[in-house]
Amino acid sequence: MSDHVYKKVELTGSSAIDMEGAVNNAIAKAGKTIKNMDWFEVIDTRGHIQEGKIAHWQVTIKVGFRLQ
Amino acid sequence: MSDHVYKKVELTGSSAIDMEGAVNNAIAKAGKTIKNMDWFEVIDTRGHIQEGKIAHWQVTIKVGFRLQ
Amino acid sequence: MSDHVYKKVELTGSSAIDMEGAVNNAIAKAGKTIKNMDWFEVIDTRGHIQEGKIAHWQVTIKVGFRLQ
Amino acid sequence: MSDHVYKKVELTGSSAIDMEGAVNNAIAKAGKTIKNMDWFEVIDTRGHIQEGKIAHWQVTIKVGFRLQ
Amino acid sequence: MSDHVYKKVELTGSSAIDMEGAVNNAIAKAGKTIKNMDWFEVIDTRGHIQEGKIAHWQVTIKVGFRLQ
Amino acid sequence: MSDHVYKKVELTGSSAIDMEGAVNNAIAKAGKTIKNMDWFEVIDTRGHIQEGKIAHWQVTIKVGFRLQ
Amino acid sequence: MSDHVYKKVELTGSSAIDMEGAVNNAIAKAGKTIKNMDWFEVIDTRGHIQEGKIAHWQVTIKVGFRLQ
Amino acid sequence: MSDHVYKKVELTGSSAIDMEGAVNNAIAKAGKTIKNMDWFEVIDTRGHIQEGKIAHWQVTIKVGFRLQ
Amino acid sequence: MSDHVYKKVELTGSSAIDMEGAVNNAIAKAGKTIKNMDWFEVIDTRGHIQEGKIAHWQVTIKVGFRLQ
Amino acid sequence: MSDHVYKKVELTGSSAIDMEGAVNNAIAKAGKTIKNMDWFEVIDTRGHIQEGKIAHWQVTIKVGFRLQ
Amino acid sequence: MSDHVYKKVELTGSSAIDMEGAVNNAIAKAGKTIKNMDWFEVIDTRGHIQEGKIAHWQVTIKVGFRLQ
Amino acid sequence: MSDHVYKKVELTGSSAIDMEGAVNNAIAKAGKTIKNMDWFEVIDTRGHIQEGKIAHWQVTIKVGFRLQ
Repeated sequence: MSDHVYKKVELTGSSAIDMEGAVNNAIAKAGKTIKNMDWFEVIDTRGHIQEGKIAHWQVTIKVGFRLQ
Repeated sequence: MSDHVYKKVELTGSSAIDMEGAVNNAIAKAGKTIKNMDWFEVIDTRGHIQEGKIAHWQVTIKVGFRLQ
Repeated sequence: MSDHVYKKVELTGSSAIDMEGAVNNAIAKAGKTIKNMDWFEVIDTRGHIQEGKIAHWQVTIKVGFRLQ
Repeated sequence: MSDHVYKKVELTGSSAIDMEGAVNNAIAKAGKTIKNMDWFEVIDTRGHIQEGKIAHWQVTIKVGFRLQ
Repeated sequence: MSDHVYKKVELTGSSAIDMEGAVNNAIAKAGKTIKNMDWFEVIDTRGHIQEGKIAHWQVTIKVGFRLQ
Repeated sequence: MSDHVYKKVELTGSSAIDMEGAVNNAIAKAGKTIKNMDWFEVIDTRGHIQEGKIAHWQVTIKVGFRLQ
Repeated sequence: MSDHVYKKVELTGSSAIDMEGAVNNAIAKAGKTIKNMDWFEVIDTRGHIQEGKIAHWQVTIKVGFRLQ
Repeated sequence: MSDHVYKKVELTGSSAIDMEGAVNNAIAKAGKTIKNMDWFEVIDTRGHIQEGKIAHWQVTIKVGFRLQ
Repeated sequence: MSDHVYKKVELTGSSAIDMEGAVNNAIAKAGKTIKNMDWFEVIDTRGHIQEGKIAHWQVTIKVGFRLQ
Repeated sequence: MSDHVYKKVELTGSSAIDMEGAVNNAIAKAGKTIKNMDWFEVIDTRGHIQEGKIAHWQVTIKVGFRLQ
Repeated sequence: MSDHVYKKVELTGSSAIDMEGAVNNAIAKAGKTIKNMDWFEVIDTRGHIQEGKIAHWQVTIKVGFRLQ
Repeated sequence: MSDHVYKKVELTGSSAIDMEGAVNNAIAKAGKTIKNMDWFEVIDTRGHIQEGKIAHWQVTIKVGFRLQ
């Protein structure tokens, strides 16, 4: 890691399928503008209920990436 | 949301399969007596181990629903 | 307080005006079905933004009341 | 635990004697209306002081019970 | 919410008047460069004291907005 | 700030009106014996309910002041 | 509570007997210099072990008292 | 549970597939040296990102087992 | 304490009687294999309910001991 | 502070030497693109171990800066 | 420790040099009026940035001392 | 990281010099019996005061190492 410096951004992804999908969607979106993504941390998991069923899983993560 | 008021109840669901199943089971059960469920928040995830294997996932959630 | 027992319920009130209004609305609603309310604790404050302005303050409280 | 679902309620019991008494009082009261109580978790311990002495111990617990 | 992805930024607003004013100032400032702001969460409330009086309320919030 | 040292004291103020009033009352009281108060941090917000209405807002703060 | 202001101090009491004794000792000591003590909150419980046995219970509390 | 005593150990499992897999791997590994495992608690969920995709889910758990 | 190094282990003791008994049982068990135990910290208190009464208090502690 | 608004970003700096060095490196890096940096808060301290020795200290901070 | 009672006060020390210096300054200042100081706990670490460099480290501690 | 499993142990190191020294001492001690140490996390920093001066820094860390 020598003297690298990392920045973390906080994102909330959503998915109708499962928690992993929500995280994947957030990272895929972030990857369009952020390079050198290195790790993520799950901060919070919640979801939306419609007509008595889970409509979306909503997972908030922090994504760490190396500053160049 | 105008001036709606919501109540949250805390539930623990369990599933032999996965975390999502435990949350689904809790919400399905709650839906039998609660109307207007709107969202849930995952509070705690744990599980029971039997003979060295996960027997049940146990996920505690808070479910928010609108008071009429 | 002798040997009284209290129950706490968790509510989210909302108001277009301010935080105090959101708490007042939650307590007014709760008072329709709960007697002997004694105290509240603010748990979380958030809000909804529409067109760049705060549309609603949303305050989550726990309300304690004496069981008879 | 198969696919049981549990609900948790938050109670504050009090006792002039000790912490255990405050928890016992809360559970005894809850048992009058709740069946299938399974476990409790201590959330907070405080008390009231009168004339320089502890007048009551006040212990807040969550009680988990199985939904039928 | 389908598969939307949200980003949260952390801001501290200040106001000589009250807490709501500090939040409003932070959101008004953010709105100059951020579109699609959807919600905020209050993280921390503090303030500056001068000559024995509150000079400024300082409220830290997270603002969530939808990524396009 | 050079090598200044600050002390923090924890106070609970109350007000029949609003949260800001409770903080103001605590700071006004503290100012009678403490000099060089510099900042405060809100730690906890709760209140007392009487006959279904908020009787008092109770806000706990820490007040930081410079030691001479 | 009208517009009373309360101060909290943090104390650690110890007792060779039990947790309640440690709290009682702390409050008895505080009462020698503090008037109008109103409530306490348990913050932390730990203890010292000697020769494989508990030598002292050490309970840290905050004591709230009304400022005159 | 009579007077059983339990010990908890903290483990981080990883999986290229999903969160449940990471927990399963940690428990399978622990089971090689620990008998009487009884429950687990999820403490932290994070992961490693490579070339813009999740390379591994990393879930930290505590595993409780009965001491003989 | 010079340059001593301490290790902490996490244990859950249980007792049908009270909290202190649960801690005592955990420490007595630990003392069979650990030497130089120096302190403990209470992490969590919960219990099991059977037929509406507390069947066991379960207290989780960390025990610190000096490494030789 | 009048009605200034501040933004906070989260950074992880690393240093082979000490904690202060890790913070300094993060701030030096941030200063290349951020103006008006005003304060930082240490969030988390960890490090990497290689061959039984600390290879890098990794300190995560939040840096607050004034928005213009 | 027999039945000693300890009080804790919260202090923020600052230093242009490093974290240890900020703690040392706070303890040196406290020692001018407090006797029997026994231990300290680091609560929070932050600092002030001027012209892109750390101007002061600010470390908040609690200092425990025995009441006589 | 493929499907590696890691264990974390909690240690408190002490040093008369500084925080870094306390962490170094803990890791050096751990390295005598633990192989494949990979990372550490600082959990708590405190210290012992004697005659108004810091006698020892005491830093509690978790050390993660790969299970073989």
